[in-house]
Amino acid sequence: MSSPRKKVVVIGCGFGGLEAVRALSTADVEITLVDRTNHHLFQPLLYQVATAGLSAPAVSAPIRHTLRRQMKRGNLTVLQAVVTDIDAAARQLVLDGSEPLEYDHLIVAAGATHSYFGHDEWAEHAPGLKTLADAFSIRAKVIGAFERAERCQTDVERAPWMTFVVIGAGPTGVEMAGTMTEIAQHTLPMEFRRIDSTKTQVVLLEGSDRVLGAFVPQLSQKAREQLTKLGVDVRTGCKVTAIDGDGVTYETRDGDTTRAQYLPSRTVIWAAGVAGSPLGRALAANAGATLDRAGRVVVEPDLTVPGHPEISVIGDLAAAKSYGRGEPKPVPGVSPGAKQMGRTAAANILRRLRGESPRAFRYIDYGNLATVGRKAAVVDLTVPVVGAIRFSGFFAWLFWLFAHIYFLIGFRNRIIVMIDWAWAYWTYERHARVVAETPQVASIVKS
Amino acid sequence: MSSPRKKVVVIGCGFGGLEAVRALSTADVEITLVDRTNHHLFQPLLYQVATAGLSAPAVSAPIRHTLRRQMKRGNLTVLQAVVTDIDAAARQLVLDGSEPLEYDHLIVAAGATHSYFGHDEWAEHAPGLKTLADAFSIRAKVIGAFERAERCQTDVERAPWMTFVVIGAGPTGVEMAGTMTEIAQHTLPMEFRRIDSTKTQVVLLEGSDRVLGAFVPQLSQKAREQLTKLGVDVRTGCKVTAIDGDGVTYETRDGDTTRAQYLPSRTVIWAAGVAGSPLGRALAANAGATLDRAGRVVVEPDLTVPGHPEISVIGDLAAAKSYGRGEPKPVPGVSPGAKQMGRTAAANILRRLRGESPRAFRYIDYGNLATVGRKAAVVDLTVPVVGAIRFSGFFAWLFWLFAHIYFLIGFRNRIIVMIDWAWAYWTYERHARVVAETPQVASIVKS
Repeated sequence: MSSPRKKVVVIGCGFGGLEAVRALSTADVEITLVDRTNHHLFQPLLYQVATAGLSAPAVSAPIRHTLRRQMKRGNLTVLQAVVTDIDAAARQLVLDGSEPLEYDHLIVAAGATHSYFGHDEWAEHAPGLKTLADAFSIRAKVIGAFERAERCQTDVERAPWMTFVVIGAGPTGVEMAGTMTEIAQHTLPMEFRRIDSTKTQVVLLEGSDRVLGAFVPQLSQKAREQLTKLGVDVRTGCKVTAIDGDGVTYETRDGDTTRAQYLPSRTVIWAAGVAGSPLGRALAANAGATLDRAGRVVVEPDLTVPGHPEISVIGDLAAAKSYGRGEPKPVPGVSPGAKQMGRTAAANILRRLRGESPRAFRYIDYGNLATVGRKAAVVDLTVPVVGAIRFSGFFAWLFWLFAHIYFLIGFRNRIIVMIDWAWAYWTYERHARVVAETPQVASIVKS
Repeated sequence: MSSPRKKVVVIGCGFGGLEAVRALSTADVEITLVDRTNHHLFQPLLYQVATAGLSAPAVSAPIRHTLRRQMKRGNLTVLQAVVTDIDAAARQLVLDGSEPLEYDHLIVAAGATHSYFGHDEWAEHAPGLKTLADAFSIRAKVIGAFERAERCQTDVERAPWMTFVVIGAGPTGVEMAGTMTEIAQHTLPMEFRRIDSTKTQVVLLEGSDRVLGAFVPQLSQKAREQLTKLGVDVRTGCKVTAIDGDGVTYETRDGDTTRAQYLPSRTVIWAAGVAGSPLGRALAANAGATLDRAGRVVVEPDLTVPGHPEISVIGDLAAAKSYGRGEPKPVPGVSPGAKQMGRTAAANILRRLRGESPRAFRYIDYGNLATVGRKAAVVDLTVPVVGAIRFSGFFAWLFWLFAHIYFLIGFRNRIIVMIDWAWAYWTYERHARVVAETPQVASIVKS
């Protein structure tokens, strides 16, 4: 009898983890995929769930369904569990409420979470957007704010309910701000008696001097113009210093003078900081890993933890570099990066099992795109030989739309999303404007 | 100047409340519709949300969107608020966190909630199905049970996770049991490595001696046969005496002998008892209303509260009778009943405003239908002149399907539901098998 199959454990079924599992689909190993949820989430469209344009099942696919063929083939087990610690010495994972899970090779693709830059108390007032639960909570907050505004008796009371603040002008912040303006300007008018939803103020606060900092300055400028045209109040160079239930305080600088400003708002959304999953700290404590300032694990060129060739870290949790021609370059935190790391980590595990030496990771950059709102987006493509192709506006938006539908997991989801978008485009309707009762309401009623 | 418009307040936007508001759409009154949620819920399909067949937005429509034309016309205001009390003497409603709301005429359509027959401690272990939040919670419980079963090391530990108990064999209980069997038999096989989902046990417990007690005995018998064929373990004559996190205890009678039985199960769903909304108690305390055993308000033939002609009670909260030929008959708690009451209550308000006397409510019974599962349903139609037409099986199921799609609110929802069902029919897939993270998981991870 041959030696037992090597155990490969993958933590996290985001873009990186899923790709790693798929890359091992025909390998003679025993894979266990552990995720704390039961679904793969198409995060680039999560803001649509938060802004009531899509339902949760449209942007998420049950992991078991997505990977059912590989399970049937026989080298994969899927477990829904929370990994609470990594015991690198014993080569096993500690899970919530069940036996530890042993591994010969481990791929940690646990992703990132929000970072409030040391102000965790802001989380309560300014939710971030990473999970479906986050999206439902933001949906309830945004839709509920208009409902509360309709109930107010005075303008003074009403104003903070009709002021929405988005902090951070990366892709998510820009999408959120653009879409909330669209809702206020086009979806809700005529649906209220006491308030005029078109008077809603959407403020986008950014610490640096431009929006979409990952893009070239001219596309940032285009995005800013498109946002302003949609009605977003874009304010750059603003450093947030306080957030509570009543509003946001931020500082602006004019030469040596710092001015504090206060913006009353009941609905603040956090799209600014991202930090590596707490499992990064577990690797630091138990495997001697080094974390960067954002809590990401600094990895070797082959994506493993220094001194632990059996542990790879990929995706948003990895501070990885691309080893192509010239100097190594940091890999951006985007889904193609995570997917490519997943493939490399899987391939390197197979190489090691065959006694070959692993290869350094090389990121192939196809470009970057971001949507701003209805008919507005920016696209920066990297085309071999030709070089960069940059465009913005309506065609960029169409390009964004089809690219996102193309990459959406699952045939059915693509159809549903296309119908939803076609419908929304013509009617301005947002069909998912449905908010489940909160336990608070239920308790008021039952009491 | 003419006298100010009379104020009509409607509590609740279920089938009854929505119909009453619509019936007043051209009336010269000032209507305020108060609901604690922001959506009208198509309750007959809520079990599909709970069993992951449909997404929440597919069975619910934002109230403001549904009624936007009437709001534009100018006689309607919609408020999302919780009514905490009814002050019948002052003719005003007490709302959570805002000014009281005055009325000249009030329609109370606050519906029903679960009743655990005095055992409120069962609620924690056996959730009922009335709201979207309930449906999400049941979805998480059902899907999570299979996930937990997959993680178990022994059969003894595993068995209660693979046993599902539905208590109450009315339409909701029958639908839930039938659908859960379908999931176990057809959707999930091949998606697990350690468990065989086809060995799942679904038990339907009913206190009386037959399922679907509102139907004629021969259709109950057909439904029971169809359930058994689908794989449901139907047990009638079972009186539940205890429910905890580990299982259900129930008693059966054999002549004078009572036997207690215990069924270990981690997933128990309550579809047995229904009680009128707590606003019924408010009417009893403040308007001298009489409640029946199920907490429903006993109303006059014109649907008003005795001694309070300005307060009507309709829908599931009303213990109403139909005044047709012969003896007055109780009105069943179905959506056509609620809708018809809504129209009558609205018409009677207009009659009173014109100085005319109100009319007694007459329920027109078109029949009754219930689905059992894939290709299985029972239909009992009441056709004028012809009499009763009864059938079951595949054609009953098709009839049920088109009837439900026809009555679904909103053109878009109907299309989406049809696509979802066509897809599910061919593939056995249930696309909404997505469970948002619970706060518990989030706290494990963040800690």
